[in-house]
Amino acid sequence: MLYRFSVLHYLTDSLYQRQLVQKIYMHEIHVRKGEIIQHTGDLNSKVYRVEKGLLRSYTIDEKGREHIFMFGPEGWIVADNTPAEVPVDLYIDALEDSTVLVLDKDLSRENPKAQPLLRRIAVLQKRVILLMSASALDRYEHFEETYPDIMQRVPQKMIASYLGITPEALSKVKNNRVREQ
Amino acid sequence: MLYRFSVLHYLTDSLYQRQLVQKIYMHEIHVRKGEIIQHTGDLNSKVYRVEKGLLRSYTIDEKGREHIFMFGPEGWIVADNTPAEVPVDLYIDALEDSTVLVLDKDLSRENPKAQPLLRRIAVLQKRVILLMSASALDRYEHFEETYPDIMQRVPQKMIASYLGITPEALSKVKNNRVREQ
Repeated sequence: MLYRFSVLHYLTDSLYQRQLVQKIYMHEIHVRKGEIIQHTGDLNSKVYRVEKGLLRSYTIDEKGREHIFMFGPEGWIVADNTPAEVPVDLYIDALEDSTVLVLDKDLSRENPKAQPLLRRIAVLQKRVILLMSASALDRYEHFEETYPDIMQRVPQKMIASYLGITPEALSKVKNNRVREQ
Repeated sequence: MLYRFSVLHYLTDSLYQRQLVQKIYMHEIHVRKGEIIQHTGDLNSKVYRVEKGLLRSYTIDEKGREHIFMFGPEGWIVADNTPAEVPVDLYIDALEDSTVLVLDKDLSRENPKAQPLLRRIAVLQKRVILLMSASALDRYEHFEETYPDIMQRVPQKMIASYLGITPEALSKVKNNRVREQ
């Protein structure tokens, strides 16, 4: 329900713009059950609006396990929120035969005022994926990248809490890394 | 780094608006280490930009365990992304003595074009909090609310994957609920 809004309304200001966008960027596709329409590693993720059927987005971890990021029934938008220049994290496939409106370009990415919100979305998507699928080591390394300046300022048990692991798992990760270096 | 942008630039279009906003809505506060500036359940969450020091946002689960949602060192924005009319999920406190710019009102909430992005952010924040802190039952009930129409259309193992629990835990939750009803 939360994603139910018109793609066009969201991306454009005026009726004129909407008609223009509709002409240039949008087309409808029919996807068969099981078909993959986006692969992890793709660039320039598209925006998909489900007209009929059911999509899902998911990631596969190092051990080959699937983790479902979201489902997209009728009316929902399915898209990868990774920044445009970065390969996407998510696969998108169809769980049922589906009719999908494809927007070739996420126009909100060209709106400077949307950037901070898009960055937040990207950070949160990454956070969800890491919490679902990443090893303690991957989570820790992503933490270091995100917060290079606060490693010394925060108690270990708080870092563990942020990562969703036990303090024991955290000190194991850190010890292993020291030994490897 | 990802959150480093000017609050004012993000919320306003023109220099005039910025000056206006600065006068009406912004003020600086000094927060002592350990001080809580937002409680879970508060309405009308503010937006905090850390000038100096370190904030964190976190949630406390039913068993009294803390789960850290994010850290906010210098230059970061800390805010709860729950919709305006809903009580916030997050506590915000200071891990160091901090100087913080407070924006009394998240003006992007009044911009209709920002609504779909804000909804996405709210959904993802909820997802992170549930993944970190909620019981299998809470996750399942939230799933039912979010996707009332697809319960019968998706295999159980996919629902478990979305919830971040094992299929066994999922069928235990469902059996317990049937018994209680």
